[in-house]
Amino acid sequence: MSEQSGPLVQKHSENGITTLTLNQPERRNSLSMAMLEALSAELEAIAADSETRVVVLAAKGSVFCAGHDLREVRDQFDSHEFQLELFNQCSKVMQQIVNLPRPVIARVAGVATAAGCQLVASCDLAVAADTARFATPGVNIGLFCSTPMVALSRNVSRKHAMEMLLTGELISAPKAERLGLVNKVVDDQVLDETVYKLASTIADKSAHTLKIGKEAFYRQLEMPLADAYEYTSKVMAENMMADDAQEGICAFLDKRKPEWKDS
Amino acid sequence: MSEQSGPLVQKHSENGITTLTLNQPERRNSLSMAMLEALSAELEAIAADSETRVVVLAAKGSVFCAGHDLREVRDQFDSHEFQLELFNQCSKVMQQIVNLPRPVIARVAGVATAAGCQLVASCDLAVAADTARFATPGVNIGLFCSTPMVALSRNVSRKHAMEMLLTGELISAPKAERLGLVNKVVDDQVLDETVYKLASTIADKSAHTLKIGKEAFYRQLEMPLADAYEYTSKVMAENMMADDAQEGICAFLDKRKPEWKDS
Amino acid sequence: MSEQSGPLVQKHSENGITTLTLNQPERRNSLSMAMLEALSAELEAIAADSETRVVVLAAKGSVFCAGHDLREVRDQFDSHEFQLELFNQCSKVMQQIVNLPRPVIARVAGVATAAGCQLVASCDLAVAADTARFATPGVNIGLFCSTPMVALSRNVSRKHAMEMLLTGELISAPKAERLGLVNKVVDDQVLDETVYKLASTIADKSAHTLKIGKEAFYRQLEMPLADAYEYTSKVMAENMMADDAQEGICAFLDKRKPEWKDS
Repeated sequence: MSEQSGPLVQKHSENGITTLTLNQPERRNSLSMAMLEALSAELEAIAADSETRVVVLAAKGSVFCAGHDLREVRDQFDSHEFQLELFNQCSKVMQQIVNLPRPVIARVAGVATAAGCQLVASCDLAVAADTARFATPGVNIGLFCSTPMVALSRNVSRKHAMEMLLTGELISAPKAERLGLVNKVVDDQVLDETVYKLASTIADKSAHTLKIGKEAFYRQLEMPLADAYEYTSKVMAENMMADDAQEGICAFLDKRKPEWKDS
Repeated sequence: MSEQSGPLVQKHSENGITTLTLNQPERRNSLSMAMLEALSAELEAIAADSETRVVVLAAKGSVFCAGHDLREVRDQFDSHEFQLELFNQCSKVMQQIVNLPRPVIARVAGVATAAGCQLVASCDLAVAADTARFATPGVNIGLFCSTPMVALSRNVSRKHAMEMLLTGELISAPKAERLGLVNKVVDDQVLDETVYKLASTIADKSAHTLKIGKEAFYRQLEMPLADAYEYTSKVMAENMMADDAQEGICAFLDKRKPEWKDS
Repeated sequence: MSEQSGPLVQKHSENGITTLTLNQPERRNSLSMAMLEALSAELEAIAADSETRVVVLAAKGSVFCAGHDLREVRDQFDSHEFQLELFNQCSKVMQQIVNLPRPVIARVAGVATAAGCQLVASCDLAVAADTARFATPGVNIGLFCSTPMVALSRNVSRKHAMEMLLTGELISAPKAERLGLVNKVVDDQVLDETVYKLASTIADKSAHTLKIGKEAFYRQLEMPLADAYEYTSKVMAENMMADDAQEGICAFLDKRKPEWKDS
């Protein structure tokens, strides 16, 4: 712990892009209760911050995130209460990412395992260095990755998810791309360039529109088809009444760049 | 509009295959209220037409379909009522495709964007020319593709859907195939040949069986596993009582070609 | 039938791995009522057998499984009752695989069609020889593969599932791998080696943990995100109280091999 410098989660904002960086590389950026609380607080702040249009989730060091802090967990073996609180807190953070009104991009270098892999799966988008690797290895230590699999199994097909969960083995970044866990794999040298180009592309859109769309995306996914259409038809008719849609459509028809008002 | 010749949606039937062709290339085959109503009427007619065994959905010109008609939409910016009616009508057409008792194959040449991409995603099968491209670019004009994403996100995994929705960028036909949005990509020169070979293969089956199967497919998808099995077990036992199943099984065991009776 | 030797389903257990082998190659290992009952009985026995940690589902001969026994089905064309019983029994067996507290690996050589393809899709994992092929060809005989599609459509994306269901055509093992129906395709010569290496890897884990994880996997898949997290958070906190988790975590931190107690 003595090596750590700065807060558990670093925050840097520029051009509407806020980067949150897990900053405990000497502990493999593990999701201790303290780290989860720090992350939760930052996400809560961003949800209320109109300057941020896109979030990048990154990590310092050669490990993206190794999942829970097993020393902390061991120290509380007797307390079912603590363990439940820990997993509830972790599940809360993952859902904060999904429910955040801004798109979140995971920038993955190094290894992302267990709840670290879940973090990647929970983000809206993910870009990985070709050296990144992913696993849900809880089964190796008798603790099945049951919360990580909630996110994993909503990203990749079930036989692939099951293979990761039952074997606990690492998969390469290219395989993670094939399975749908990450959007893109690039050379480590151009990881930041790729991530920030993607983030900038999205930051150029209307923040109000991104918010509407992201919320509707995850809500409609859980509905039967007829309900999903009834719901999203209303969302679109409502979206059409917004300044940014009317400006965007007029700008498109007039062949000029739109100027967004909402945030 | 003056260039248009013939109806908004052309219909041609041959050998049990009915082709519906979006026929307003000078307007990029956009889904104006008039186009949606024409398409809806044709689908309704086909649902009651026992001659049609398979439907091909095609489009004239270099754009498959560019989504909604933005001029029409702009002219009604003040009317929330019109916008809701428009999206409800569009959602109705998409569901008519899903609920149609005949398989529908999208034949995609050129660009399919927004609700045009949704049309492709809503069909049971899709074959694309290698020059075809796909996007859900509503985010670029402040109008998130919230109804298109209902179909898109039921075809491709969530990170890929989110990338298309958040960036609005075009993807190539080969990428669309990798993601699961289309079944097959072929050289533009053999697109028709490929589509009609596929359509003929399916038109050779028992229309009654196709109807049973397509309906059950989408219904069971929305059920928990146990319910899905209870439901489809009944569907199969019922299917077994049909003339075409008994004929098909006898023909198979007798090593002869079946002769379908039902339609 | 006269050629058959031994029981319909052979059972062999070694090192915690129980192999069930469909053993009616002269009938293409078809899922007659007798075969389904034999398979059901074996699965029921395994569910109560603490020695078995992993199950391999294999088949004798050049056909993995050809689906239902069409001669048996034809002999009962008049009995809706029999047909319903047959499909209920088949659906029961498929769900026994899903609900079995042990992981099940399909070892596929040869052709797996209709309910045979469903067997593969119902297993947690599947490894196929490169010569294996898969189809849901019921549509060719007027009997849509409505129960097989329950498993198929939960393995592969809908356009791919629909293509198999509507055309009835065989797909190759490499294509099945790309679609997500099987985890891995290997040369026929190393199929057993690959399957048993995978099975051994999993058999080395804590059986108690595998049981918790497999059950939670399929349950959470059918829940909305918030419910899935609430449920799995409890599962993990509970899992943490188990001897095997505490042993596994301590062993990991102490850099030694864990010794599992539970079964």
